[in-house]
Amino acid sequence: MNKRELFPPSVRAALQYPAPGAWMPEVPPGAIRLSAGYPDTSLIPTAEFVRSIQVLVQEERDLPFHYLGSRYATNLRQWARNHLASRGIGVDGAQTQLLITAGAIQGLDLIARVLLDSTRAVLVEAPTYMEALEIFQNYTDEIIAVPMDANGLRLDALEQILAARLATHQVMPTFLYTIPTFQNPTGYTLSDARRRRLLHLAKRYDFLIVEDDAYGEIFFQHPPVALKALDEEKDRVIHVGSLSKVLGPGLRVGWSVGPAPIIDAMSVFKKDLDHTFVEAAVGCYLEHSDWPAQLATIRTTYRARCDEMLHLLAKSMPPDVTWTTPQGGYFVWVHVPGVDTLALLPHALQAGVAYIPGYYFYPAPIPAEGAVAPAGACAGTEYLRLSFSHVSPTEMACGIERLAAAIRAVRGD
Amino acid sequence: MNKRELFPPSVRAALQYPAPGAWMPEVPPGAIRLSAGYPDTSLIPTAEFVRSIQVLVQEERDLPFHYLGSRYATNLRQWARNHLASRGIGVDGAQTQLLITAGAIQGLDLIARVLLDSTRAVLVEAPTYMEALEIFQNYTDEIIAVPMDANGLRLDALEQILAARLATHQVMPTFLYTIPTFQNPTGYTLSDARRRRLLHLAKRYDFLIVEDDAYGEIFFQHPPVALKALDEEKDRVIHVGSLSKVLGPGLRVGWSVGPAPIIDAMSVFKKDLDHTFVEAAVGCYLEHSDWPAQLATIRTTYRARCDEMLHLLAKSMPPDVTWTTPQGGYFVWVHVPGVDTLALLPHALQAGVAYIPGYYFYPAPIPAEGAVAPAGACAGTEYLRLSFSHVSPTEMACGIERLAAAIRAVRGD
Repeated sequence: MNKRELFPPSVRAALQYPAPGAWMPEVPPGAIRLSAGYPDTSLIPTAEFVRSIQVLVQEERDLPFHYLGSRYATNLRQWARNHLASRGIGVDGAQTQLLITAGAIQGLDLIARVLLDSTRAVLVEAPTYMEALEIFQNYTDEIIAVPMDANGLRLDALEQILAARLATHQVMPTFLYTIPTFQNPTGYTLSDARRRRLLHLAKRYDFLIVEDDAYGEIFFQHPPVALKALDEEKDRVIHVGSLSKVLGPGLRVGWSVGPAPIIDAMSVFKKDLDHTFVEAAVGCYLEHSDWPAQLATIRTTYRARCDEMLHLLAKSMPPDVTWTTPQGGYFVWVHVPGVDTLALLPHALQAGVAYIPGYYFYPAPIPAEGAVAPAGACAGTEYLRLSFSHVSPTEMACGIERLAAAIRAVRGD
Repeated sequence: MNKRELFPPSVRAALQYPAPGAWMPEVPPGAIRLSAGYPDTSLIPTAEFVRSIQVLVQEERDLPFHYLGSRYATNLRQWARNHLASRGIGVDGAQTQLLITAGAIQGLDLIARVLLDSTRAVLVEAPTYMEALEIFQNYTDEIIAVPMDANGLRLDALEQILAARLATHQVMPTFLYTIPTFQNPTGYTLSDARRRRLLHLAKRYDFLIVEDDAYGEIFFQHPPVALKALDEEKDRVIHVGSLSKVLGPGLRVGWSVGPAPIIDAMSVFKKDLDHTFVEAAVGCYLEHSDWPAQLATIRTTYRARCDEMLHLLAKSMPPDVTWTTPQGGYFVWVHVPGVDTLALLPHALQAGVAYIPGYYFYPAPIPAEGAVAPAGACAGTEYLRLSFSHVSPTEMACGIERLAAAIRAVRGD
């Protein structure tokens, strides 16, 4: 092995953080996975997808197995443009460009790759998507957490943070990462008034906004307005989307839309080439299926599943336990007063139910040398994330009962 | 838009280089693509692959559409370990680890991501794979080109470079990137004696070796010994492989094998999650197909195709034009004395045949402000790469005739 320092300083800095899921216990077989942010089994169009692949190969033969040449892979790009237009987002190809990525997550990584380094800072919602935190930690230690309330990101808190940093000559954030719609993990949605105010703040303090819209299509009542659709400057918001939550995450199809110079730079650093086969298969499926009908089924199913979870929580939980009432998405965020949800987890797993402790949705402290467990409390200590997307109503009922019992047991209720 | 500097310095440095393929003219429809490093149409098992997907979905239902849980996706990892064992490469999981990547190219990018920065240097063969050059240019300007001859990388030249850099206190290279077997673009194979000497040099001057084995399975006579199989230190060589050249590049399945600390670090930076569907589909295909028989067909077909190209070149080319005689792989490297192959290309395309000019396989100079074409000569000016893999014998005959005529025309023969 190389006797010199193996990794450059920026890589060594990233490797200080705990490995992804390092402290997350294994879910035992048979446990009910209220932890899984997976789509429902019944909503994955497996048979139709296989039929689309048959059509694809009948029509295009070996083309989708090569680097280039599949019409259906090209059509996926057109489908994404049409989808974005339906959300009020124009892709003109000049000022605003589109990049197909391996899920939303590759888009987030490429955004961080071209915009962040160890001298730069990024704003995140607290709590937020754990994979996004892992990505940002690969680039900078300066992850600034902004609290949320039931109307989403707290703009008063954001403005205080920005004003204080400016006054004290701290590095100003390069961008804010936000999931404004049916947020992961809280289920909160940023109100329309706050969306407009956020764009004003971004202009005033000159930071970009990265909008993660992974759950945008899974609305229970009203289609939400994308932040990018309100981006009057046209180059303030980078919008990141995905088929993972509506078609299947194992396909790895997502997109990023934003200012041409940023998307161009992301393309330069996107070094996995085009995933032609899977992009063509998805393009073919979307062209030949009744996607709007499928989306309608998805919305109806998850709305019912969410109603069921809220009903079960009300029935089973101790009276001081509270939770959010999402208007879409996959998740309910539960507050369990007086309980460290990280310490509760082994008891819950033992009882046969899994969830994600709130701890994981907050920027991780760099662990002390030799530490084997995370150091103490964070703002999410008493919270946990439940997902209603991947379990049947019967499993859900059983899982919520087990969780309520585990909570009562550790509290000695 | 952010009024501050949009990109950090390391990103700005990478963006100085010309965009990939920036000066490469479009191949007109109908032109014979002796340029395409694609597998042959007849060797892509389209029908069997579709049948495997049917089996996969019958057996696993929606599992391969999710993040985790597909047995076949797990089996792909076992298949890769068995494949590597057949090449003499052990993956013990402790000292040596395996990472599945989106093609070899994602492995190369992750290697560069964790080992390079602007203060570090990398050695490459000259000429070498153009995508690898693009990747390294994203991390450092210090790309040191080492010439080749018919026995592969010239170790005398490498040693001179290393000794001179050491004597003059220049930064020593972090790793050497090499395609030792059926190289792209030359078709050269590093001799066995040089393989051993290269490993000694790497130990003496303390640099790592990145072995790109994309063509290793496409041998015409003898299976080549992998550099990694000769790595007695166990942590000197990172071996990168792929199914792109034997199954289909559009599937994006590859792997990296190397020292555990490096593979671990690569995993931390690999932020596209697992490509479960395509990995499961490939795992299922490999399990249910007669892959050794398919490989035998692949070798026989490309050997015949290569023989045919060498025969056609001998028949058609002016007598001073010379070329390599590959023992495997996809490519023949042609020397056209007195002809700038970059200037020849528009004439060849006009005549209905495409190739890749030698220019593209050498580290690119950073273009002068406002330059629209590459600046002058490089060691590859009089060379061009022909691929015998993707054209039928009839097309090949026609393409070589057209190319010979275009060469004669520009030289005024």
